[in-house]
Amino acid sequence: MDIKIALAQLNPNVGAVEYNKNKAIEYIKKAIQKKVSLVVFPELFLLGYPLGDILTRYPILGLQCQKALEEIKQYSDKIDILIGYAEINRENHKKPYYNSIAYLKQGEIKKIIRKTLMANYQEHNDYRYFEPYCDAQDRIIEIKGKKFGVVICEDSWNDSQFFEKNLYKIDPIESLKGKVDALICPSSSCSRVKKEQLKNNLAKFISKKYNIKYIYVNQVGANDELVYEGLSRAYNEKGEIMACAEPFLEELFIFDYTEGGKISSYYKRYDKDEKPIKKFSLDYGFDLERTYLALICAIKNYFSKTGFKKAVLGLSGGLDSTICACLLADALGGGNVLGVSLPAKITSKESKNDAKTLASNLGINFCEIPIVEQQTAQLEKFSKIASIIQGDFIENENSYLEDNIQARLRAMILWGISNKYQNTLPIATSDKSELYMGYATINGDMSGGFAPICDVVKTKLFALGYWMNENRAQKNAIPTSILKKPPGAELAIDPKTNKPLIAADALMPYEFLDEVIWRIENLNQSMNDMEKEEFLYEKKENITQEQKKIWLQKFFKRLKSALYKWNIVPVGPVIDARSINRIEFKQPIVSTIDY
Amino acid sequence: MDIKIALAQLNPNVGAVEYNKNKAIEYIKKAIQKKVSLVVFPELFLLGYPLGDILTRYPILGLQCQKALEEIKQYSDKIDILIGYAEINRENHKKPYYNSIAYLKQGEIKKIIRKTLMANYQEHNDYRYFEPYCDAQDRIIEIKGKKFGVVICEDSWNDSQFFEKNLYKIDPIESLKGKVDALICPSSSCSRVKKEQLKNNLAKFISKKYNIKYIYVNQVGANDELVYEGLSRAYNEKGEIMACAEPFLEELFIFDYTEGGKISSYYKRYDKDEKPIKKFSLDYGFDLERTYLALICAIKNYFSKTGFKKAVLGLSGGLDSTICACLLADALGGGNVLGVSLPAKITSKESKNDAKTLASNLGINFCEIPIVEQQTAQLEKFSKIASIIQGDFIENENSYLEDNIQARLRAMILWGISNKYQNTLPIATSDKSELYMGYATINGDMSGGFAPICDVVKTKLFALGYWMNENRAQKNAIPTSILKKPPGAELAIDPKTNKPLIAADALMPYEFLDEVIWRIENLNQSMNDMEKEEFLYEKKENITQEQKKIWLQKFFKRLKSALYKWNIVPVGPVIDARSINRIEFKQPIVSTIDY
Repeated sequence: MDIKIALAQLNPNVGAVEYNKNKAIEYIKKAIQKKVSLVVFPELFLLGYPLGDILTRYPILGLQCQKALEEIKQYSDKIDILIGYAEINRENHKKPYYNSIAYLKQGEIKKIIRKTLMANYQEHNDYRYFEPYCDAQDRIIEIKGKKFGVVICEDSWNDSQFFEKNLYKIDPIESLKGKVDALICPSSSCSRVKKEQLKNNLAKFISKKYNIKYIYVNQVGANDELVYEGLSRAYNEKGEIMACAEPFLEELFIFDYTEGGKISSYYKRYDKDEKPIKKFSLDYGFDLERTYLALICAIKNYFSKTGFKKAVLGLSGGLDSTICACLLADALGGGNVLGVSLPAKITSKESKNDAKTLASNLGINFCEIPIVEQQTAQLEKFSKIASIIQGDFIENENSYLEDNIQARLRAMILWGISNKYQNTLPIATSDKSELYMGYATINGDMSGGFAPICDVVKTKLFALGYWMNENRAQKNAIPTSILKKPPGAELAIDPKTNKPLIAADALMPYEFLDEVIWRIENLNQSMNDMEKEEFLYEKKENITQEQKKIWLQKFFKRLKSALYKWNIVPVGPVIDARSINRIEFKQPIVSTIDY
Repeated sequence: MDIKIALAQLNPNVGAVEYNKNKAIEYIKKAIQKKVSLVVFPELFLLGYPLGDILTRYPILGLQCQKALEEIKQYSDKIDILIGYAEINRENHKKPYYNSIAYLKQGEIKKIIRKTLMANYQEHNDYRYFEPYCDAQDRIIEIKGKKFGVVICEDSWNDSQFFEKNLYKIDPIESLKGKVDALICPSSSCSRVKKEQLKNNLAKFISKKYNIKYIYVNQVGANDELVYEGLSRAYNEKGEIMACAEPFLEELFIFDYTEGGKISSYYKRYDKDEKPIKKFSLDYGFDLERTYLALICAIKNYFSKTGFKKAVLGLSGGLDSTICACLLADALGGGNVLGVSLPAKITSKESKNDAKTLASNLGINFCEIPIVEQQTAQLEKFSKIASIIQGDFIENENSYLEDNIQARLRAMILWGISNKYQNTLPIATSDKSELYMGYATINGDMSGGFAPICDVVKTKLFALGYWMNENRAQKNAIPTSILKKPPGAELAIDPKTNKPLIAADALMPYEFLDEVIWRIENLNQSMNDMEKEEFLYEKKENITQEQKKIWLQKFFKRLKSALYKWNIVPVGPVIDARSINRIEFKQPIVSTIDY
């Protein structure tokens, strides 16, 4: 018997139940036309993911979901439907909702499957609104003689043999042992480095272990910080891929239960790269492709979902603004991007030329607005302030006043342009390495309506630059001079060299810096742990233990005083395994940890 | 038999285990000197609260807690100790920690009591790191023949008779029924409007219901957004208060188990005001005193814990900056505050005079730095930009460019002063009503290192102004003219009146606006719900249903486009029952809810 299954790999709008319902119906109709037996939507599709606190603040959303289901079920006379929503919990002693999947069949809500394991780490906050449904429940649906067990996202992530450590006592998959032919896993699981590889290994393991098929459908698109890769897919009983949708693409992906279907070439590339990283490496490998696609997806979605059409950013001729410009050009089209060169007194001719060449290569709009006069006027103003300020205010020896004035004047022009022109969003170009170090100016380069690379470290940005030069349709758009020069904000002169200060001198070598970040985020290491382990940079450069300790101490000292800046970084996509984005990392600013 | 109990109502530093341990030992020694039998510390005292994600990111903190307990227990030969910490969970299938209280006695860790109910709403995120301990556990300790049941914070908040709706199935207090003479409830429970009254009613109810004493100890001080009131206290078996510590004050509060002890006069004032609000009212009553004290506490703690000593803010002669200046003067001392008048072209003489008079009344430092020249230069610059910008950028009809330039130039000066002078923090003066409406300039008045009134609505700020004029040591420091004039940012001229635009005209009357906010936050109402109910302002002013609908639609439309600004509001204290502070409200920016 022929069973065609459609995975509705779609991009919902968060909170827009009516819109999501209409989209669901549109795709159900398509699936009916294609003679599909079962169409599966992602977890919580009617609401979108992530939810924030909208469910508790606007209970009307629960009622809207209910109403939407009543409408959708009318289409289930010709097709079976599995669709995610927030189910109002009417009991008096529990959380207000369940995270549920409705099984619609023959015009009825035939069954409701509720999520058991409440993901509450990183970007997940299930337990804020959802009651875990832990009683034994009937998760099985039957279609043309085949039995499918439905496990919602986290419910499939607790295999005690696969994971070294389990978060929960219950394993919903185990309870289906011997009872089903296939698992169906509706998810809303965001993209992070090496996470897709982990899911791939888990799915292979589960399908082999239980000798069943494993069918996974994921949300696609992006909402604020979170990017959803899609890549919905199915594995056979031997743990082999039998069908896989495209990444970052909205589609109704149809495959045959027995024969399988198309397999995205992207899947094949990442499948080769399946081992999770255990060591810091400057070879970012396959992840550069994912990072590029995820960033493009994040930008596209943020603009289209907020109604912005154009982006304006400062082009310094440095790495950060260069990478941002490339990404924006590819996501929005060159004509929708305005790069502004904003030279100050010490800006070099090379930097100005690099900015101009880049803009021309990318085909983005470009203009030059020098800030020299305003810089002079501001500095003059501040030179007089000392004489009028009352009270015992003591001047800083190194005040960064001059540096910051430049960055702030630039941001003032970019925000002014965004005021003046319709639907134009200014872009914050800060990168993750520098945000960790607080090496970004408030109301300056840190300021903007979106921060595309706030979760990408510097060494990866360099790699991404080379990758884009090789892999974008238009080759070598980034001038080599930009990729070759050492990063520096060009805001101050180094008295030692009489040239603009290089960031690595003000901070520490980026290869070292990025490894510290990596060790915190991936290994949860303390400073003490790191002192004992060998860094990649140590191996290469033969630095002393004393030097290493100085850098580590500097890192944690700077991190502490950067915390308040993290609080006001504009929204930007999560890329790494862990991030400092507000959706995830919440260290109190006043905290004083003995790292 | 005489039992003296000490409630260690203390202010921990988040994450600073060594510091918190030393503080604990200091107070244990004091308690020993005073012949105390039992000293009780707040929930999670060794780590401080809130934790953010530091426990999972820096597992070293769990080990530090363990080490600290080993040291503290040595003091338990002369006194019994109950102290909160994060206990490492060594099982392989659960969350990494328990939220535990160690009972130290005779030099040993005699017992560990673990939290059962995981608070995961508003500012609470227990389930991110703590395994709920739901097995029946021994929560009872015995001192001089009396039995005490230990229930950690949320564990005492699930009485099925007291609450209309319960969050959890289990009630840990019920399991102690008939087995204990008193409950001890170590908490870290932050201050919010009417929350202390709810706790008071709950404690009275529980002690009467079970005929037991109820002893509550709370953290004090503030960490980032959260302010802890303290007010640790004990009730007798009849539900009567028998002892109560001061609010917002660090102290070792000692009382006698039988005789009771001192009762703070603040408690007596709020006890009179015990009914939770069910209707929006402009009579803020007792809550003005709490709000004032909470804001002072928040400012003091943020400055002392981050090392800042001085505050700089713009003084416009308007309400927001006036209230901020009063609070800062009282929290930091007038000599540590610098008020800067930053007049632009349309700034009135009255505003300038009001600012000056206020500064002089408060005894804060003051200077005037006009921004007129820079304003002209910037506008000139922008008038030329149109001719050099490439691409099809379409000008906005109403661009707010002129308004925003003024706000941003002011912030540039304030941040410059903070750059130039040691330990000086610029203050963001935005209030909650205007943040809800996005009526604040990014990199302008919304910008700063701390936002003292970001959770206080405008009508309450007026009331607070009058309250301060009456209740501060120095009476009437705020010129009446400031309290009498309608709010307006004085950034643009209203073409209709030829006078500076009034905010209520640009938005809607503040009495109406603040009630919409109140209804969202306290009643979870949708726009539809609100249309059906009568507003206070409607009663008074006889507005049409059409007008009401226009305002409601405007409100929700503005709210939607304000979401991205909420993402970058500087840290500031939570005051209301609900807030938009990042620690609590997490609505995705891209969300499109049909409210």
